[in-house]
Amino acid sequence: MLGGTGDEGFGLALRWSLAGHQVIIGSRSSDKANEAAKTIAQTSSRPARVSGLTNENAVSQSDVVAITVPFSALAETLRAIKPNLRPGQILVNVSVPLETAIGGRATRTLGVWTGSAGELVASMVPNTVRVVTAFNNVSAELLKDVSKPVECDILVCSNDDKAKMIVLELVNSINGARGFDAGPLENSRTIEQLTALLVSMNIRYKVRSAGIRITGISSGS
Amino acid sequence: MLGGTGDEGFGLALRWSLAGHQVIIGSRSSDKANEAAKTIAQTSSRPARVSGLTNENAVSQSDVVAITVPFSALAETLRAIKPNLRPGQILVNVSVPLETAIGGRATRTLGVWTGSAGELVASMVPNTVRVVTAFNNVSAELLKDVSKPVECDILVCSNDDKAKMIVLELVNSINGARGFDAGPLENSRTIEQLTALLVSMNIRYKVRSAGIRITGISSGS
Amino acid sequence: MLGGTGDEGFGLALRWSLAGHQVIIGSRSSDKANEAAKTIAQTSSRPARVSGLTNENAVSQSDVVAITVPFSALAETLRAIKPNLRPGQILVNVSVPLETAIGGRATRTLGVWTGSAGELVASMVPNTVRVVTAFNNVSAELLKDVSKPVECDILVCSNDDKAKMIVLELVNSINGARGFDAGPLENSRTIEQLTALLVSMNIRYKVRSAGIRITGISSGS
Amino acid sequence: MLGGTGDEGFGLALRWSLAGHQVIIGSRSSDKANEAAKTIAQTSSRPARVSGLTNENAVSQSDVVAITVPFSALAETLRAIKPNLRPGQILVNVSVPLETAIGGRATRTLGVWTGSAGELVASMVPNTVRVVTAFNNVSAELLKDVSKPVECDILVCSNDDKAKMIVLELVNSINGARGFDAGPLENSRTIEQLTALLVSMNIRYKVRSAGIRITGISSGS
Repeated sequence: MLGGTGDEGFGLALRWSLAGHQVIIGSRSSDKANEAAKTIAQTSSRPARVSGLTNENAVSQSDVVAITVPFSALAETLRAIKPNLRPGQILVNVSVPLETAIGGRATRTLGVWTGSAGELVASMVPNTVRVVTAFNNVSAELLKDVSKPVECDILVCSNDDKAKMIVLELVNSINGARGFDAGPLENSRTIEQLTALLVSMNIRYKVRSAGIRITGISSGS
Repeated sequence: MLGGTGDEGFGLALRWSLAGHQVIIGSRSSDKANEAAKTIAQTSSRPARVSGLTNENAVSQSDVVAITVPFSALAETLRAIKPNLRPGQILVNVSVPLETAIGGRATRTLGVWTGSAGELVASMVPNTVRVVTAFNNVSAELLKDVSKPVECDILVCSNDDKAKMIVLELVNSINGARGFDAGPLENSRTIEQLTALLVSMNIRYKVRSAGIRITGISSGS
Repeated sequence: MLGGTGDEGFGLALRWSLAGHQVIIGSRSSDKANEAAKTIAQTSSRPARVSGLTNENAVSQSDVVAITVPFSALAETLRAIKPNLRPGQILVNVSVPLETAIGGRATRTLGVWTGSAGELVASMVPNTVRVVTAFNNVSAELLKDVSKPVECDILVCSNDDKAKMIVLELVNSINGARGFDAGPLENSRTIEQLTALLVSMNIRYKVRSAGIRITGISSGS
Repeated sequence: MLGGTGDEGFGLALRWSLAGHQVIIGSRSSDKANEAAKTIAQTSSRPARVSGLTNENAVSQSDVVAITVPFSALAETLRAIKPNLRPGQILVNVSVPLETAIGGRATRTLGVWTGSAGELVASMVPNTVRVVTAFNNVSAELLKDVSKPVECDILVCSNDDKAKMIVLELVNSINGARGFDAGPLENSRTIEQLTALLVSMNIRYKVRSAGIRITGISSGS
């Protein structure tokens, strides 16, 4: 869990911790990571297995690594953790190329040369690392408010079907969340765009956590 | 209703006819348009107000014009109907820039210079015509099967708020459909992309009418 | 040479024939291909080795295949010739995604999901076929007027350096043309865009064959 | 001249100063701006009219404002100077959306929601400000080495023809530079992309200032 001190990463760590998973929060500062881990431990009613480390160490000790840093820090973070990645490891990109990365609007996106932030991640790590995208559309608000289930669907993309299945299980372990196989990594392009649209709808409808549900498909993953 | 002899246009005409609206089906051939109109009239249990005309004449006699032609025919159709458009008229773009327009895949899109098919429409008609986008994501299958409600949300975009409200009412008049104000016309970019993603999910999940519902917003329009 | 009955393809075939290369013109109709071949043979003062075949047969008998069809026919053409392609063969994409492919303007382009027309070609043929892009920016007018040298630079892209070198030699064999190694296939994105800009400048300056020269690099390939 | 303490802006200020124009260098720090102005004054053999101010003050005292900040600082800079812009003022965007803005490569670009950095500028300032794009492709190296003429063509875009003419004159006042009318502002999309391609060619050919010349058009502006 990289960027776990940010809103989105913190929310995800919290939800996974509540689901019983062991969670390591990574940050550029291990102090900040530790602090976030403590907050999560205090939120939980049962003993939580959550700790805080630097990004590099968090990567070394995780099987599944979720990247929740802002898009402006994505390339830099990938270069920092690259030496710690190992073959077979699953890298879940949550980061979305909102225009805010260059000082623009959260209701717009930047076009990414490789197609999407997810595909940028794939282009910057060894081929043996299994890149998956997920949670791009779920708001931090929704994740952090553990009094409510996560009432939206999570679209999961990857070119590695086994890795996608593992992440779909991680999605479905979160209370309320329902994962969908949204196809190959290239489909993350549209899903990332969708985040900007949902931000726009949040503003228009004065809510904080617009999301989507898929209809016409009887069950999720 | 232009392109009303195609699957998507036919479905929309059928649903609006059932909702009690007067519907004019436009086509390059008035014979084909007439035939589609007859089929709709026969489907309906109560007297339907539906007729068929050439695209040009259909535009002249309609207050709200929906364009449901394939993207490859969009520019040509707009040039054909341009002389018949009048100030204040509402033009609803349903067409999506699927890659099939150039012989590619329905799970991918083409980038449109103006941003989206909806914005292309706006760039090709006089400023006084009010361009709205809607129904980009609803499958023809879902529209045509009138035994079931249209179980999905319809995202509506426009830079003209009044025109958007009128189209939202037209959306909500369809059994099951729920319209959402999805913001300015530029937001149609993401919504159009979403169609390709839903096609991809139809294929993967072996269904025919995947759609979306918006969560986290208590009501629609 | 596929699409050799179009202006751009004809011009290229003519220039290569004059440079002494054996040229096979491909077309959907072998009659049309033959006719174009005859016209070239008559233009040449010395015996020309030029013949006309169907696209499929032209591909089977060529070492280097140039695709000069309009972008709207690109995917269809690739599917047609795919069974005739063989490992190691060089496929040179000349086709540019001008918006005219969907009835729009030649001064604008369509965004291609894979990045560029050249990358679309690469995505549709076996990995063993070596895809190169070249001649995207040179006007048909300039190629066809053999009374003048081709006074512009030709930017050549490929992920296969040897194939790129072979195409650069083919470029430099044309009177006046100077080839440049413009890097990996992904760089064809910008080069294809440039065609629309040059069309725009042709219109503005009332000329027919605006092109570019690279400055600041002492020599070409 | 905003961003005049960076390489590109400094080079432009230097060239314009040598051409006899009055030049005001803007920077977030007026000290830095002053220092750059002094360096330019010392470089010049004849009395130079060059001074340094904050960005805001530089904008207030200039008729033509060139923005040469990195793309990552563009939106922020525009917000800062917006209160100082006045109707009729000419704003020349030099900034290019290289992927370096988010930690990526200078041989790739980011897609801009509005189409280009130039169009982003236009979208962020009042309609009465006349936005022009120019100098996107000319390397800082070439501008700064005043021992040589600027041996490349400068493509100039704007939706305001008079503003475009004024900038074309400013271009042509620089030794060696030749300006071309490259059409409406939307054409800046391609020209900005071209910068990344030229960076890529600089690397491949081990040079520092690859540029372009337009061929097939007898004269420039």
